[in-house]
Amino acid sequence: MSIDSPAGETEPPLIGCVFVGTSLDGFIARENGEFDWLIAAGDALGETGYDEFFASVDAMVVGRATYDTVRAFPEWPYAGKRVLVLSRTLVGSVGIDEEPDTTAHATLAEVVETLVAEGRRRVYVDGGRTIQSFLRAGLIREITITRAPVLLGTGIPLFGPLDGDVHLRHVGTRELGAGYTQSSYEVLAGG
Amino acid sequence: MSIDSPAGETEPPLIGCVFVGTSLDGFIARENGEFDWLIAAGDALGETGYDEFFASVDAMVVGRATYDTVRAFPEWPYAGKRVLVLSRTLVGSVGIDEEPDTTAHATLAEVVETLVAEGRRRVYVDGGRTIQSFLRAGLIREITITRAPVLLGTGIPLFGPLDGDVHLRHVGTRELGAGYTQSSYEVLAGG
Repeated sequence: MSIDSPAGETEPPLIGCVFVGTSLDGFIARENGEFDWLIAAGDALGETGYDEFFASVDAMVVGRATYDTVRAFPEWPYAGKRVLVLSRTLVGSVGIDEEPDTTAHATLAEVVETLVAEGRRRVYVDGGRTIQSFLRAGLIREITITRAPVLLGTGIPLFGPLDGDVHLRHVGTRELGAGYTQSSYEVLAGG
Repeated sequence: MSIDSPAGETEPPLIGCVFVGTSLDGFIARENGEFDWLIAAGDALGETGYDEFFASVDAMVVGRATYDTVRAFPEWPYAGKRVLVLSRTLVGSVGIDEEPDTTAHATLAEVVETLVAEGRRRVYVDGGRTIQSFLRAGLIREITITRAPVLLGTGIPLFGPLDGDVHLRHVGTRELGAGYTQSSYEVLAGG
């Protein structure tokens, strides 16, 4: 335990980081997984900080839905990055090992165990249910939300039920282009 | 029709305005209606702009839950303001006419009709379901959201289902005290 740790608190094994775009009503994608409303802004957003963020993580964890969406892209966007897919159904299935550095794991505990065993500490967590699982487990430390100026009414929510209030420290908020805003938070305690 | 109105668009009868505090996960209150997490910040927020906003509206419309919450306050906070309560069950009930300038109405159409007949144009709309009804009816023009740095996990959501995407113009975002942020939007079209 480092000298800065408050007495009685154990350091979590990972620093889970969320860097996500949402609608103003908190959806990360439509019900069908599309995020056309998000990419419509394109270059008009300006510098979002994503590349710098992506370079800062040792690995990423995604859910099955995110994996399927990303896998359908013409080019694998996570080239050179260790990727763990949290999915009961994907374990052992054909194709998962085709992407280099990508493995599937049935449980959150197994994902964490694998990451710790590999010495990976700063982890990019993506996908609604996966983010919520990590949050409830107290494994999310940083959250950056880029908000689009649109209400969708329905979709895949970023946040979900918790066991209790989660308090955050507001790190900063800035305006991007096309009416987008970006806020960063540090998770303090709770969940 | 004024010379500035786009061809084919009719001016809505009201300018509905939302000025609301939410958790980072989009709740305006806990399931039981409490917003302890919001008032906990108190004076640390600094100037929120609420007083100026409140002075700018000709009337306010609230739902039954908001009315009941506010009525339990030691002092009626809407003194001097015309208040319409949107509630089927409250119409004709004892007590509703005890507050000056307060009436209950069973339907959104009746609320709008009453406001138009009274010549009231700029209207403060409050309460989750009431805001959602006005939004779906295309009667919300301005939305100011003050966001608390906390996740509640569950509660009364600000936004709900819509008939389609609602596009907004981002007017501005600023940081308040205690880690709160405040963003203002103008509703462009949709719903």
